[in-house]
Amino acid sequence: MDLRFDTISFLSDYGLADEFVGVVKSVIRSMEPDVAVVDITHDIPAHDVRAGGLALARAAQYLVPGVVLAVVDPGVGTARKGIAVEVGDGQSILVGPDNGLLAPAVGLVGGASRVVSLEAPDLRLPSGGATFDGRDLFAPVAVQLCAGRPLGELGPDIDPALLQPGLMSLAEIDDGVLNAQVLWVDRFGNLQLNVGPDDLESLAADAERVRVRLDDDTRVARRVDAFGELRRTELGLVLDSYGLLALALDQRSAAEELRLAAGDGVILEPLDDDNVGAPVSTQVTLGERHA
Amino acid sequence: MDLRFDTISFLSDYGLADEFVGVVKSVIRSMEPDVAVVDITHDIPAHDVRAGGLALARAAQYLVPGVVLAVVDPGVGTARKGIAVEVGDGQSILVGPDNGLLAPAVGLVGGASRVVSLEAPDLRLPSGGATFDGRDLFAPVAVQLCAGRPLGELGPDIDPALLQPGLMSLAEIDDGVLNAQVLWVDRFGNLQLNVGPDDLESLAADAERVRVRLDDDTRVARRVDAFGELRRTELGLVLDSYGLLALALDQRSAAEELRLAAGDGVILEPLDDDNVGAPVSTQVTLGERHA
Amino acid sequence: MDLRFDTISFLSDYGLADEFVGVVKSVIRSMEPDVAVVDITHDIPAHDVRAGGLALARAAQYLVPGVVLAVVDPGVGTARKGIAVEVGDGQSILVGPDNGLLAPAVGLVGGASRVVSLEAPDLRLPSGGATFDGRDLFAPVAVQLCAGRPLGELGPDIDPALLQPGLMSLAEIDDGVLNAQVLWVDRFGNLQLNVGPDDLESLAADAERVRVRLDDDTRVARRVDAFGELRRTELGLVLDSYGLLALALDQRSAAEELRLAAGDGVILEPLDDDNVGAPVSTQVTLGERHA
Repeated sequence: MDLRFDTISFLSDYGLADEFVGVVKSVIRSMEPDVAVVDITHDIPAHDVRAGGLALARAAQYLVPGVVLAVVDPGVGTARKGIAVEVGDGQSILVGPDNGLLAPAVGLVGGASRVVSLEAPDLRLPSGGATFDGRDLFAPVAVQLCAGRPLGELGPDIDPALLQPGLMSLAEIDDGVLNAQVLWVDRFGNLQLNVGPDDLESLAADAERVRVRLDDDTRVARRVDAFGELRRTELGLVLDSYGLLALALDQRSAAEELRLAAGDGVILEPLDDDNVGAPVSTQVTLGERHA
Repeated sequence: MDLRFDTISFLSDYGLADEFVGVVKSVIRSMEPDVAVVDITHDIPAHDVRAGGLALARAAQYLVPGVVLAVVDPGVGTARKGIAVEVGDGQSILVGPDNGLLAPAVGLVGGASRVVSLEAPDLRLPSGGATFDGRDLFAPVAVQLCAGRPLGELGPDIDPALLQPGLMSLAEIDDGVLNAQVLWVDRFGNLQLNVGPDDLESLAADAERVRVRLDDDTRVARRVDAFGELRRTELGLVLDSYGLLALALDQRSAAEELRLAAGDGVILEPLDDDNVGAPVSTQVTLGERHA
Repeated sequence: MDLRFDTISFLSDYGLADEFVGVVKSVIRSMEPDVAVVDITHDIPAHDVRAGGLALARAAQYLVPGVVLAVVDPGVGTARKGIAVEVGDGQSILVGPDNGLLAPAVGLVGGASRVVSLEAPDLRLPSGGATFDGRDLFAPVAVQLCAGRPLGELGPDIDPALLQPGLMSLAEIDDGVLNAQVLWVDRFGNLQLNVGPDDLESLAADAERVRVRLDDDTRVARRVDAFGELRRTELGLVLDSYGLLALALDQRSAAEELRLAAGDGVILEPLDDDNVGAPVSTQVTLGERHA
């Protein structure tokens, strides 16, 4: 057999407690045994299109060229469209609902070269109800794309500019402070900010330390490259594996300690030199590192 | 190599926190690298044979023809039998304990054409204790079935009628009301009932709305096809992806709001026309849909 | 293509809620589509090197010969070394951080025949930060080992005796009692002890029952082969699937009932014959088994 693609990368909010993911994979393997499925994650919080879009964007540059099947779809069964989005001159095709989920990843890899609406009458598996398009529509479409079915056979073209956009806020410097946002809290409690190293340099050249203003607290964070460089109670600003800065503690959850969640705002300020020793709430233990 | 089957679909209550599932898959791949494993789910609640049987039945019609390995096995190590059940004129074989786990799926696909008890002396891997038959008995048997070993070599035949039955309650109309049961609460909090569209029509022809009696509350549910058709606080009766009716809210958990769990009873009643406007506890917001 | 190994067995503390595991698998498949990944588990508690080492050791004898990729790595980005450890005369190679994680498994399969430090300049993927060596270093190394790259090209040899040891406590008989430790609490709440059948025989020949001293309670446990042999409230000492003894209840969590966690101490004592009927806190129900 001659496949156009041999890999489907699969992200959803289905969770692993039910059989949803297993059924989708069974549908794929029943239709085309030579296509492999790589699970990105299925534990996107239920209905959280924004979190799903960000996870997909973080993963995007590492995914195997092929089909990306992404389903966080609170509007399933309504008038929202299903779409297939071609990127990278046909290197990959993303399949999912047109609700903003695919937009951040598509933007990150250079934008869509072609988008079609999944409306052809033969795309859908027969089924009981209209609540499981991952199984009944998106997975069969993903397999057909792997098998080489042309995009144009799936439905009419859509202007890529008319896709639902993803909602990504940019950090902004205003009045000498950087208004940032928590994009993501990872499993370890690290708080990824929408702040890159350049943003930080714009705020304060060569600032080794910055002040972090929270709703009800002020902390000092030190710029380090590894969690293990931090002292026991010291807050760090770590360049994370996606090239963004994350508030972090060593082997403890910064999210728990700072009581911050995805979407929360954080203000970063330059730390005046004469303020370094001022009594802020960060306890800087001068003893040696634990562990 | 010439395999009879190239796929093992695998369901268990092992969870993913321990290495149980990984070890079973390692045993399978060590014995036969060309067999693929499709995980249905491993998060069946510990020891919950009924929940495992229902999940397997929901998945059954979508599974890749081949071997189904299902292990929810509180009686491991006792006199309960291990069995292999052939269905669909040999299209698939289910392997697991004879405790009712396999029965709903077997029934759904047309019943067993042959059942054997796993008693041949060479089936079992040597091991420390007698508590992990998934690894030591069922997985090796599943691989051997993939490799084409005849069912008759695994042990003596059992009369399919003597298998442990699954426990499935049927909804019943009694005195003009439908006594139903929650079969399953899915990840999104939707409450699948043992009620099909026909049952609902028997209760009240073309009823767009029905009354839902709970232990300590009464609600009105509206029959819709998609979660997104529901207004903000409106309770829906949605035809789910398995062709059964589910109590649901839009983007919120009906299980949490109604405080219902799998196995709980629910009474559906026709809604008298002159009662539609009566003050039941459902708040019907007439504003437009959110999000 | 000619691979030296076609399987990577993968264990981590990445969890499944984020895209970490999916990204690592995408990197592997992008580099070498014919290598399969078998997930051992990814739910090792965050940063818990000891728990990861024990899970890897339990799985070790069942793993497919090939590469083992193990990442529980709180010291990522610091001076701790990344290593590749050859075992079984080259039958398998373990890849991960040198922090004790690999040590229990290596010891269990007969020790290391060769260890190298991952220092060659071409091993690492370019990336944003220094916090995700699973993706940027260990996975690429694992793939290259599958492809047949010689160990000696990855970096300088290390004396296996200089590896970070794993921390495994041995049970000891002292003053006629056995001082044991809980190694692992599994998904079902069974408490695996660092006690084998021989240890128990040393304590009391043919003891069908032993006394279990906890911090604030004393129980009697009966030696059985299957959970299902236990009466409703009876505590059991079950030979588990790894050949160690586990404190267990039938279909309930011994960890919850005894309030014990991994690492906790437990004292086992012989039960004097004339004490068998004494009022200890275990309620022995003489009625028949439930379920």
